Amino acid sequence: MELQNAKGTKDVAGQDAILKEKIVSALKEVFSLYGYSPLETPIIEKLDVLTSKYGGGEEILKETFKLQDQGKRDLGLRYDLTVPMARFIAMNPGLKMPFKRYQIGEVFRDGPIKLGRYRQFTQCDVDIVGIKGMAADAEMIFIAKDAFAKLKLPVVIKVNSRKLLNAIMDYAGIPAEKQEAAILAVDKLDKIGESSVKKELAGKGISAEAARKLFSALKTEGSNSEKLAKVSKLVKNQEGIEDLKELFSIVTSEFEPSLARGLSYYTGTVFEVFLKNSGIKSAVAAGGRYDRMIGQLIESKQDYPAVGISFGVDVIADGLKEKGVSFGETTTRAFVIPIKAFKDAIGVSEKLRNAGINTDMELAGRNVGKALEYANKLQIPFTIFVGEQEVKAGKIKLRIMKSGSEFLTTLEEAIELIKRSL
Amino acid sequence: MELQNAKGTKDVAGQDAILKEKIVSALKEVFSLYGYSPLETPIIEKLDVLTSKYGGGEEILKETFKLQDQGKRDLGLRYDLTVPMARFIAMNPGLKMPFKRYQIGEVFRDGPIKLGRYRQFTQCDVDIVGIKGMAADAEMIFIAKDAFAKLKLPVVIKVNSRKLLNAIMDYAGIPAEKQEAAILAVDKLDKIGESSVKKELAGKGISAEAARKLFSALKTEGSNSEKLAKVSKLVKNQEGIEDLKELFSIVTSEFEPSLARGLSYYTGTVFEVFLKNSGIKSAVAAGGRYDRMIGQLIESKQDYPAVGISFGVDVIADGLKEKGVSFGETTTRAFVIPIKAFKDAIGVSEKLRNAGINTDMELAGRNVGKALEYANKLQIPFTIFVGEQEVKAGKIKLRIMKSGSEFLTTLEEAIELIKRSL
Repeated sequence: MELQNAKGTKDVAGQDAILKEKIVSALKEVFSLYGYSPLETPIIEKLDVLTSKYGGGEEILKETFKLQDQGKRDLGLRYDLTVPMARFIAMNPGLKMPFKRYQIGEVFRDGPIKLGRYRQFTQCDVDIVGIKGMAADAEMIFIAKDAFAKLKLPVVIKVNSRKLLNAIMDYAGIPAEKQEAAILAVDKLDKIGESSVKKELAGKGISAEAARKLFSALKTEGSNSEKLAKVSKLVKNQEGIEDLKELFSIVTSEFEPSLARGLSYYTGTVFEVFLKNSGIKSAVAAGGRYDRMIGQLIESKQDYPAVGISFGVDVIADGLKEKGVSFGETTTRAFVIPIKAFKDAIGVSEKLRNAGINTDMELAGRNVGKALEYANKLQIPFTIFVGEQEVKAGKIKLRIMKSGSEFLTTLEEAIELIKRSL
Repeated sequence: MELQNAKGTKDVAGQDAILKEKIVSALKEVFSLYGYSPLETPIIEKLDVLTSKYGGGEEILKETFKLQDQGKRDLGLRYDLTVPMARFIAMNPGLKMPFKRYQIGEVFRDGPIKLGRYRQFTQCDVDIVGIKGMAADAEMIFIAKDAFAKLKLPVVIKVNSRKLLNAIMDYAGIPAEKQEAAILAVDKLDKIGESSVKKELAGKGISAEAARKLFSALKTEGSNSEKLAKVSKLVKNQEGIEDLKELFSIVTSEFEPSLARGLSYYTGTVFEVFLKNSGIKSAVAAGGRYDRMIGQLIESKQDYPAVGISFGVDVIADGLKEKGVSFGETTTRAFVIPIKAFKDAIGVSEKLRNAGINTDMELAGRNVGKALEYANKLQIPFTIFVGEQEVKAGKIKLRIMKSGSEFLTTLEEAIELIKRSL
């Protein structure tokens, strides 16, 4: 038997695992500061929930992992966290609105493997359900700002409105039934460029003249208010313009008329967050308003307006690595090496841990050379030697691994020194 | 379509989700204090890895969820976190030993549904690979002690050795090839009682005389050293006795000669942790030493001695609930209600969040009565009214939800008061 990962999956270990934990915990902290609560839905869902007409759509269903339980029930692995949230809302009619939840979890898509595309990956979603007004959309942008400030990653947040995009398409003369396809084509603008998008539009039966008018409107330049004023003159339906004006009066961000987002369920604001001064060109977070999805999925007459944002944990990790951020192979700060004083060394380790210092200890009984080699490879910054004689004198020997300097000191002083270095 | 969870799965929401997050984060903190690093292996594994001869064994394979990817590759959902860890170790021969890792993740078993048994559940494992000596086993017990101290749950930790159990079975005259089956029968002692275990032993062809001798040894009473002395006189192979003596010289715990554990891969120390003064009789954590499993799984000539402990997040949550521990429906501490001062209210919310206070805000524009009702249902302890006139005077109105008392104060004083109440 050849031991391998399942195709398209990966292990996350060492530095990468520590970095991922730091990102997830920073995001959770920000979500909680905004009053969002955790929700955990299962990884396995009934297939009819996942394949429901108003779920993720045709494309994603082709990539849904299917399985059966022992009762031959048809099940699938979730492909996102939004459809399961909608199911949860439907099954819990007593939920207080607005429902503010975050969820961090693994999702699965049995698609083609490309660089950076996996069949299992982590989604990190925060959503607010039950609020129609722009105050909710603004909160998503505030959350993104605070999250990336906390992660010390400078970002630019680009915003548009699907309502406005549709109005621009009306202006360009693109018929309503072709607008969704046109929006999905425009979504690829950054990746494939204007001429390729125009070819795709032509392939969908959209005239060259309509495409020209569309791009003339999308390429509007200037400040947010200048762009809004210019586009406002072109379009008949002013709802998108009004939404964006209200949004920008609450929170600053960059109006980008060509921003589209590649999912068909968006109904209003859409936004994407990009790193500044970075080689990473894909969005590190993105989301938007989807007022119809939940209500339709659960066939409810009640409205479930909703807006959410999803953070890309892996691409954020890439962004931090690009900036040289590293937490080392371990979060361990001290390595205790007993020299014929095993039980004293356990006592010393306990005191270090009680002081909140992550502490490992030589448990294998290796000699000092081998133990130091281990601590060094794991990049643990301090080692502490606990020897019979030192113990009698109430001392330990502290070694600063970087410089190699060693000195006798009390454990209390060593603790102070290590804590100052944190 | 009827919206339902997949059979045997559940959503974790509200108080339960918050409690689970608190437990997991307390456990992670303790694992890190002991120098363990996170590892994340995928939920999907190749079926041949999961069904390998030295994996979880026959019983568990019947309960493994099977699926295929688009390339018709046979895959399965992991049923534990140990087999994937073994695969990871095999694929990374450069790993430094000892390898100390923790992993918290969902595992899947397509078994019969009983009260408290789910087809998807969370495992929370910490393992150390590469150390033969009892120092590692002792560390598992120290970790359990610190974890339950942190969770403020008094526990008793029961310990035995598989080597000793085998030696006792030799003494009772149970042939080697029947000892594994006998151990799995003894594991049920607490659940089904002595007479049922004896029936099961008889069914496996073990004589009544052997069963009598077995139980006379297992029912030894007294202090740890008294019990060790008594059992020591009965058995020929003293390895288990020596291990336990060494272990108890490092860390205190309770020697329980009848403790067996229901998995066949254990080779040495086994332990189970129980709540004191609790109606919950099942173990809240359990583990042991499994020196042969990894090496055999990866068909290596190298030895991979290993010992680990697994914490039951759900049963720990039950234990905390039994003690009346609750974190409420939300971790939100303050709810800001704007009274014709929406933007000022956003500024107030921002200041509360900057002070580290989890803060929600009325974004739906509901009137004061409705907004208070919402804050009340979510058990948010403080509300803050932000009105035009108060803002002009540099004040806000703070309401303590429990008492209903309201007073005008500065935001700074309100922040101090809320922080003191945390």
